[in-house]
Formats: sequence, structure tokens, C-alpha cells
Amino acid sequence: ICNISRKQTRSESHYFNSFVSRTKTCGELRSCHVGQEVTLCGWIQYQRHGLFLVLRDFQGLTQIIIPQDEVRAGKKMPTGDIEVKAKTAEVLNSCKKLPFEIKDFVKKTEALRMQYRYLDLRSFQMQYNLKLRSQVVMRMREYLCNLHGFVDVETPTLFKRTPGGAKEFVVPSREPGKFYSLPQSPQQFKQLLMIGGLDRYFQVARCYRDEGSKSDRQPEFTQIDIEMSFVDQAGIQCLIEGLLQYSWPEERGPITTPFPSMSYAEALASYGTDKPDTRFGMKIVDVNDIFKSAELGFLQNALNMPQGTIQAICIPQGAVSNSIIILVTLVKLNVQKECFKNECVLLISLPDGTLKSPVSRFLNEKQKSDLIKAVKAEVDDLVLLAAGEHMEVCSILGKLRLETADLLEARGLALRDPAAFHFLWVVDFPLFLPKEKNPVELESAHHPFTAPHPSDADLLYTEPAKVRSQHYDLVLNGSEIGGGSIRIHNAKQQRFVLEAVLKEDTELLSHLLEALEYGAPPHGGIALGLDRLICLITGASSIRDVIAFPKSFKGRDLMSNAPDYIVPEELEPYHIQVAWPTAQAEVKTN
Amino acid sequence: ICNISRKQTRSESHYFNSFVSRTKTCGELRSCHVGQEVTLCGWIQYQRHGLFLVLRDFQGLTQIIIPQDEVRAGKKMPTGDIEVKAKTAEVLNSCKKLPFEIKDFVKKTEALRMQYRYLDLRSFQMQYNLKLRSQVVMRMREYLCNLHGFVDVETPTLFKRTPGGAKEFVVPSREPGKFYSLPQSPQQFKQLLMIGGLDRYFQVARCYRDEGSKSDRQPEFTQIDIEMSFVDQAGIQCLIEGLLQYSWPEERGPITTPFPSMSYAEALASYGTDKPDTRFGMKIVDVNDIFKSAELGFLQNALNMPQGTIQAICIPQGAVSNSIIILVTLVKLNVQKECFKNECVLLISLPDGTLKSPVSRFLNEKQKSDLIKAVKAEVDDLVLLAAGEHMEVCSILGKLRLETADLLEARGLALRDPAAFHFLWVVDFPLFLPKEKNPVELESAHHPFTAPHPSDADLLYTEPAKVRSQHYDLVLNGSEIGGGSIRIHNAKQQRFVLEAVLKEDTELLSHLLEALEYGAPPHGGIALGLDRLICLITGASSIRDVIAFPKSFKGRDLMSNAPDYIVPEELEPYHIQVAWPTAQAEVKTN
Repeated sequence: ICNISRKQTRSESHYFNSFVSRTKTCGELRSCHVGQEVTLCGWIQYQRHGLFLVLRDFQGLTQIIIPQDEVRAGKKMPTGDIEVKAKTAEVLNSCKKLPFEIKDFVKKTEALRMQYRYLDLRSFQMQYNLKLRSQVVMRMREYLCNLHGFVDVETPTLFKRTPGGAKEFVVPSREPGKFYSLPQSPQQFKQLLMIGGLDRYFQVARCYRDEGSKSDRQPEFTQIDIEMSFVDQAGIQCLIEGLLQYSWPEERGPITTPFPSMSYAEALASYGTDKPDTRFGMKIVDVNDIFKSAELGFLQNALNMPQGTIQAICIPQGAVSNSIIILVTLVKLNVQKECFKNECVLLISLPDGTLKSPVSRFLNEKQKSDLIKAVKAEVDDLVLLAAGEHMEVCSILGKLRLETADLLEARGLALRDPAAFHFLWVVDFPLFLPKEKNPVELESAHHPFTAPHPSDADLLYTEPAKVRSQHYDLVLNGSEIGGGSIRIHNAKQQRFVLEAVLKEDTELLSHLLEALEYGAPPHGGIALGLDRLICLITGASSIRDVIAFPKSFKGRDLMSNAPDYIVPEELEPYHIQVAWPTAQAEVKTN
Repeated sequence: ICNISRKQTRSESHYFNSFVSRTKTCGELRSCHVGQEVTLCGWIQYQRHGLFLVLRDFQGLTQIIIPQDEVRAGKKMPTGDIEVKAKTAEVLNSCKKLPFEIKDFVKKTEALRMQYRYLDLRSFQMQYNLKLRSQVVMRMREYLCNLHGFVDVETPTLFKRTPGGAKEFVVPSREPGKFYSLPQSPQQFKQLLMIGGLDRYFQVARCYRDEGSKSDRQPEFTQIDIEMSFVDQAGIQCLIEGLLQYSWPEERGPITTPFPSMSYAEALASYGTDKPDTRFGMKIVDVNDIFKSAELGFLQNALNMPQGTIQAICIPQGAVSNSIIILVTLVKLNVQKECFKNECVLLISLPDGTLKSPVSRFLNEKQKSDLIKAVKAEVDDLVLLAAGEHMEVCSILGKLRLETADLLEARGLALRDPAAFHFLWVVDFPLFLPKEKNPVELESAHHPFTAPHPSDADLLYTEPAKVRSQHYDLVLNGSEIGGGSIRIHNAKQQRFVLEAVLKEDTELLSHLLEALEYGAPPHGGIALGLDRLICLITGASSIRDVIAFPKSFKGRDLMSNAPDYIVPEELEPYHIQVAWPTAQAEVKTN
């Protein structure tokens, strides 16, 4: 790397050049600067026979001529109008052969990028992503702090275990047998701050979640964490819409508010998911009425089930040439894998307005034509018909909708505008869900502090399973980027939910329950997942591309090789020892 | 708590009232608002016979009249000009009897405050501290991000153990025997970001340090973490001076820059510490020349030692009445406790211009009058004379200087202006110090990445103990509030320091050493301790008063009772078990 200098003249531009010896970055020289003497610092991107070189820094590239005779070469870069003729040059450091070139189009494996992350960070794309992230967060802070009087409060990360906190990392303390936990969110603290009268809190909060190996998840992640007193759901939604509008990067075009809103029930019925990608159609269509008198056994069976239903989606051009084979395989795989209790059949819309299918002979003409009408099928469209339990049928069709959309796009069909940003509020979630392992018992759909929907408050004590909540999710292009709720502020109601409905041991939460008894104000909040949001804004293919030093999907840092073994003496102050699995223990002792 | 409402009219002031049902805060109503209808939300601070009540929120107090007849009462508060006549009132929640009143002048123990931190946070002082902290940090971000092009980059807290990282919390992973560590600072990451070409980085970084029980330290704390490429010491100092000036709260008066600078050697010689409190004099005075030919044994002995010295300080009015006894006791205690090898005597300046002391008969007149002149002693001043090894003598006198200053101030002497802010750079530290347990070996005075002073670079390979560093500390009113350095960017030099000088095993740092080989730019940085800085700005008596949810000095959260026992099954995924100390293990099994 190099310090190219002609004469020490300070530039007026102090934005990037304050406090350092350069007078210009490698990105800012233009023809208007011709004749000036400048000092540049950067890395040699390219050099040729001692004739000229290209200097790179975090702002761009500049061509440097090593004077011998008049060389002129117009380069295709923003600074291409000028060349800097070197007067003096100082080599500040040397560089051994790089494991990969610092050029965006040079392909390298993710493992190699992670091992040499500090070199990977020199790429234009990584620097762009990190700078954009920094700018978006700064704008969010301006909006919250400077425009709306929020107080940025830091909350602890060494905390107490939360009930059911199976995904919390533990941190041994120096007191034998006692552990801190790294919390998954500042949920308790943000509520305690409202009880403490702080009125409006936010934090760009580091959170922790130990999920073992999960792709595109990180053991530590960041959320924009917000809580307000005396607020309702509409207030929080309005705040967030303003926040995103204010912080949205100009180069991604404006976003319009308010965002559309959809109930959880509608999202499930129309998109088979609680985070619909509304950038394209292919909605799920209820066709129960069409097949009320169907003779097909599996349709009849579905209609006789308590939550039975028949639903369809139409895949445009899904039956064209070879894609049909892929789709059929896909459907079979999914149906087998996901849910053997449900059935799913394929029907192809023919040019003569009829449907081709192994089951078509069991359907009468009216049913077929009604179905074509209901899903608006055109020639060569593919209709998927699924029957079974409502939630499962919708979920399967929702997944197939997304997978087939990917397939259709891979084939060249323009389904989703890659530059479009579709925000959506999903509201009116159920407050409780049946436990998967024991459906007679209930668990919180989100967390036990969520307030019931005002219209359903009385149901809480009679039919809790029917209570809707004041939870809201924010969805962007089919990804959940945030979620929050109005919280329970009444101590008795909170105790009833924890003890009577959820059968939780409240001991771990006794401080919060007591706090609610001291005049807790009505309050609510939200958290936005920053990594995911920035990933969607930048169009990065993974959240690892918007994090400076991410972990691998196994939770490892491939650069430093963390986590790592440590010597037993270093565990002694914490009164813990490793419980080696037997096989490994033997290897260790050998 | 209450929702006092007359009619829903939206105020123009959207700063604190956006998104919520109130139209005004309890702090903003003035006589100009007379006649308006407002909605307030808050807590009942005081009520009287259903006649009137005082409503409190995060902005202030407002008096509410419950209409029955015309009550008028001028109250001494900023909103005292107005009273709000209640039209409708809604009780939003009830409050059981508080463990202490929410009034700043009501004394409560720290333990009680911590147990009910959410109530303690309702005090004016805590809310002021947290709001000021938020605003100062916001201004710092504006300065760094918006004015000087810094990029806010989040770095991981689940990382690899650093060499000698005895103060690092460990976090067990799901891989048997492998642990993350919670780093004490993002030191490695900030350097890797420079190697990655990010050019100027900052982060308001959460850091961790497990020091067991230490008063006024927290196991997690926050630092303003900064790193720049192509910068020198003067550049970083200029940046920080601008940063503090820009973010300094208006109500604390302006601060002037540049800050004065002092070498480590001078700080030690004049103040006996590397963090001098320069708000008052009482400097240490070198009196070696005066006593060159002294007959007193302990003075002679000192002068014959290799680093021997005789130093004095003068305590103004230190000999007045009863304080002398305290001072004498103090000095004796300190000298005995601190260092039995040194000796320290007291001399009292008498009205006749002589000195009274048990040793005065061993000093001749010239020595006495020279001493009085050298320390500028006046009548009733107390002179402390200490002899011994230079560093130890200066340290003892430095400590006595601070302790006597406290004593003199307790007696009413105005030594230090409580509203004054004295910043000071301390520079030219030694790069290495002899290890306390084995003075033949060297250890880093700060950390092994600190660059040697350019003038001493060659000494590194011949006499490393004599090398000064490019480390700088920022001191405010005698507290270290920041420190940083220009780093080593040459891989060979870094390896020499680690291997040849410090005899460290470089395996844990191999990734950083390798990174330096790939064209690391010259770089340097600094970290400011945010908790301490805010503590000094607000005049809080402890950093616990500028942190929303601090830990006790034993590292406990007294509100939630963290850390806490967890069931063995929850440790299983992490392949660890508790190694109970024997006595406790028996209690557990009984």
C-alpha cells in the first residue's frame, strides 16, 4: 500500500479527509481538480511496468502515472477523467500474495471469504453494504431521538434465564452453580423501563439465540428495539411507517405509507403463511363450494373433517413443456414430506377449456369449469387442488406457491419485480396456540406478555384458545422483518395468563409481575430485525453479507477459529468442567 | 396512574406527543395554554381530598383540579402558572404501596433502589442522567457519522479467547469442550476492519470484563470505540477534542480545545499518577538538590539507591487545628500500607518561617528555608517529605495528595471547582513494563498491538525496556476516560514484540498476524469509557447512576436475582457440569 504525495496541501473537503495525511480520497478527483497537488493513501489495485498504477481506497480508484514521458489513458471509472502524476511515493506496507483478488466478479467460496474476512471486506459490495447499514441506522436514530424524543437506553446482556429459555446461551459466574443468560431480546427491560416512566425507549440491541445449526441465522444479531407508554397498535404502526420512510436509502426509491394490513386468518387463507410475499398473485382460492357434492373420496373426506377444506392455486404457464415434470415432482415430494393426511392433485388447463388430470374423470363438467373460473386458469396453466385440514392445506399450498414461483422465475417468467418493496402488516394473530406435542395445552403464539385483543378480553377467562392478540408483524417481500405487541399492563391479567392459561412457573418472572403492580402504564412496542432488513434493502443473498464478521451456519468464526478449546484452569474460577461425551473423552485421553 | 382528558385535540407539538393519546406532557403547560383542552397521561404524584392532584410524567408535574368550586393554588414548579381542570379522568392502572416515595430527596439504600430499579428510574435524577446520556451519544454519532464519514460497524461479542484473557467471561458452545469468550474490547476487530479497508470505524461497543468484586466497575460496560487508517497521534487527538466539544451538553458550559498534554514521566513526577487531577495544585516537588548533603539516614539512603529520590508536597493549611492528627495518621497508614521501603516525614510551616518536625533538628537552616521556598510553604501549611525509589515515592505522594485534598474539602477549603472540567492528554508512556512477579521479564504497558514511538523504534530491538509508545490516555478531572494508540501495522514488528519481547504464544493471534501481512495500512484509534464520562458530566456519585440496570459490586442484578442456579439438563447441550466446591457440594446432596 502506498502514500502518493505531491505536496502537503489541505483540501477544503473535510468530510472523509479530516485528521489524516491524505487531502483527497481515491474516489473524488474529477477534471475540475486538474492542476491541484494532492496526497492520496491506498492500496495498489494494479500496476504496469513501473509506468502507471491504480490506487484503491474505500471510496474508489485513481490512476497514478509514474512520470517518464507523457502517458494518457482514459479509464472507465468515475475518476477516469484525471490521472495523478506522482511526485513522491512512499510504500507504507507490503502485501504477500492474496488468496483471492479484490474484485467483485472473482468468484470465491464462502469458506475462503470467511477465513480471510478482512480481505473480503475490501470488496466494493461488502463496503457498500456496511456503509448503507451504518447510514440507515443513523437515520433511524435521528428519527427516533431527534424528531420524536425517544431515549436510547442500553440494557444488560448478562441477565437471568427466562422461562422456557432453551435457546439462551449461558455464562457461568464466579458463584458456584450460578449462571447468567444472554437474552434473546430486551423484552423484560423495555417493559420495566416503561414502568420506570421513561415513556419512549429505543435501542439498537444486540441479541443472542442459540439455535445450533440453522442456515441464515446468527447466534448474535441486532434488532431495532422500541417501546412506548400510553400507545396503541395504530400508534406503533404509524411510528414504524414513519421510521422506515425517513431512513429508507434514496437510491432504493421512495416507499409509500401507510402500509397495507391483513389479518392472520386472511394471510393464512390467501397465502398459506403469516408472512405473505405480496409482490405476486397466485393466491390460494377457496373452492369448497364447487366440490360440495364431489364424488372423489379424498375431497369428500376433507369436507367431513372438523376443519376440512378444499383449496386451489393456479400456476401460470405451469404446464409448459419440461417444467411440468419438475412441478409434479415438487408437489409429490412436498405432499409426502409435509403431510400424508392431506391430498393434492394436479390439473392442467387445456386449450379446449378443459382440465387434464388423473382425477378429471371423477369431476363433472360444471365442477371443472367452475374451478377454471374460480382460479382464473388459462391455457397451459397448472391448477393445484388440495384437500384436508384447513391450516395444513393452506400451508402446503403456500409453500408450493413460493417454490413454484422460484421455478417459474428460473425459467424466465417475470413474477416479482426485484426492485419492488412490498410492506405488509399482519395483525389479529391468535393469542395462544395448541402445543404441538400436547394440543390440549396452550402456549403463547408469540410471548406471554402480549395483550389480548380488546374485543376478546372477556374470552380470555372462558375460551382462551379463541382470543386474538394485539400482536402485529411487519412483513417485507415475504420476510418477517419485525414484530411487536401491546403488552399486558395489568398484574392480575398477566398472572392469569402465566399461571392459569400457560401453567408456567412464575418464579423466574416474579420481579416483572411485582413491577406491574406498581402502576405500570399501558405500553407497547416492536422490534425490527436489522440484519434481515438491511439484507432486503441491499439485495444481499445472505445476512452474512451485511454483517462485518458473521459466524458460519454452525456458529463458527472461520477466521479466528472460535469457539475453541480452553485449558481447564481457565474454567476453574467459574466452577465448571467439561462433560466430555464418552467417545470423545477416550480420544482425548489417548 | 391516570389518563386525564378533556377533549381529544391534537397539539402541534409532535416531539414528545406523536403517536400517543396525550396532547401535552406534564412538563409543557404554561400560561400561554390557558383555555386549551388537553389530554395528559401520567402518575398521581400527590392528591388531596378529591380536591386536586398532581400528575407526574417523564417531563414534569402538572396540577389537576377536580371541579367542585374554584380552587386556585400557585405551586412552585415550572408549570405552576396553570392548573388543568379535569373534565374526564380514566384510571389506567392501580399502584400498591410503594417501598419508597418517588422524590429525589427521600433517602433510600442502594440495595433497595436496585431491588426496585423500575421505581428508582422514576426519579428526576435517574431520568435526567439517562436522557443526557442518550443525547450525548446521539451528538457523538452525528459528529462521527454525519460530519466525518465514520462507518458504524457492529462487531461480534461471541469471540475467541485472547492471550492472557483471564478477565474474559466464557460462553460454552454446543461443541464439546469449545468455548466462546466475551471480549473486553473490539480491539482485534477494529484493526481487522482497517486491514479490510473500512478507513474510519466507530461503534458504541458493549464490552465485558470479569473482575469479580470491584466497586464502581461493571461486568458489562460501554465504550465509544474508534479506529482510523492513515492517521497519527495528533489526528486522533484532534478528532476526540472535536468530538467532545461537539457532543458536550450545553448546560455544562463550553469546553476549550486543544486539551493540554503531559508526558507520562511528567505526570508521575508532578502528580504521582498517570491520571493527574489538574483542577488543583499541590504538585510534587523534586527536592533532591536541597538534601544532597543531608545527614539524615533515610535521605542519604534514598539518594544512594539506583532510582532513589527525595520529593515533597505542600498541603495548604494542612497543619490547622485538628486536621493535623487526621493527616498524620493518614500519612503513617499509607506509608506503612503502601511501601515499607520508603520513608515519609511531616513538617509544619511555622509563623516564624521555620519548620516544626521530629526530624527538623537533623536539617540545617539552609535546607529548611530552601525546602520552604521550593514547595512555597506558608504559615500552617504542612510539608510532606518522602524519600525512596522514584516511582514509589511519587505514587505515595500522589495518593496522599488526593486523599488530603478530600480531607481539606471536607473541612470547607475550596480546592476544586465542582463545575470545572479539566481535560488532559497523557502521552509518551513506556511501551513495556517489568512484570510485577518477575521484573526481568517485560509485559505490555497497555496491549501488545501498541506501536513504539517513532524516535525509539530502533531501541525496540536493543533495549525494549526503554522504548516509549504511541499510546495516549485522555484524563478528565483525574479520571481516565479514554485511551488509545497508533498500532503496529508491520507484521514482522508485531511478531517480534509478541515472540521476542513478550514471549507470548502467538497461536491465539495467528489470524491477526497473518492479516498484517496482507498490506495493513498504518492505523490507530481510541476508546472512550462512556459510563465514566457520563458519570463525570452529570456529577453522579457512581457509574451505577448513569446505567439503567447496573449490577451490584458483586456482579449481581438485585432486581431479578441474576446470576442464578439453573437445572443440570439446561447445561447438557453445552457439555459442561458444575464443579461444586466440596463443602457446598455436601450441602447440595443433603
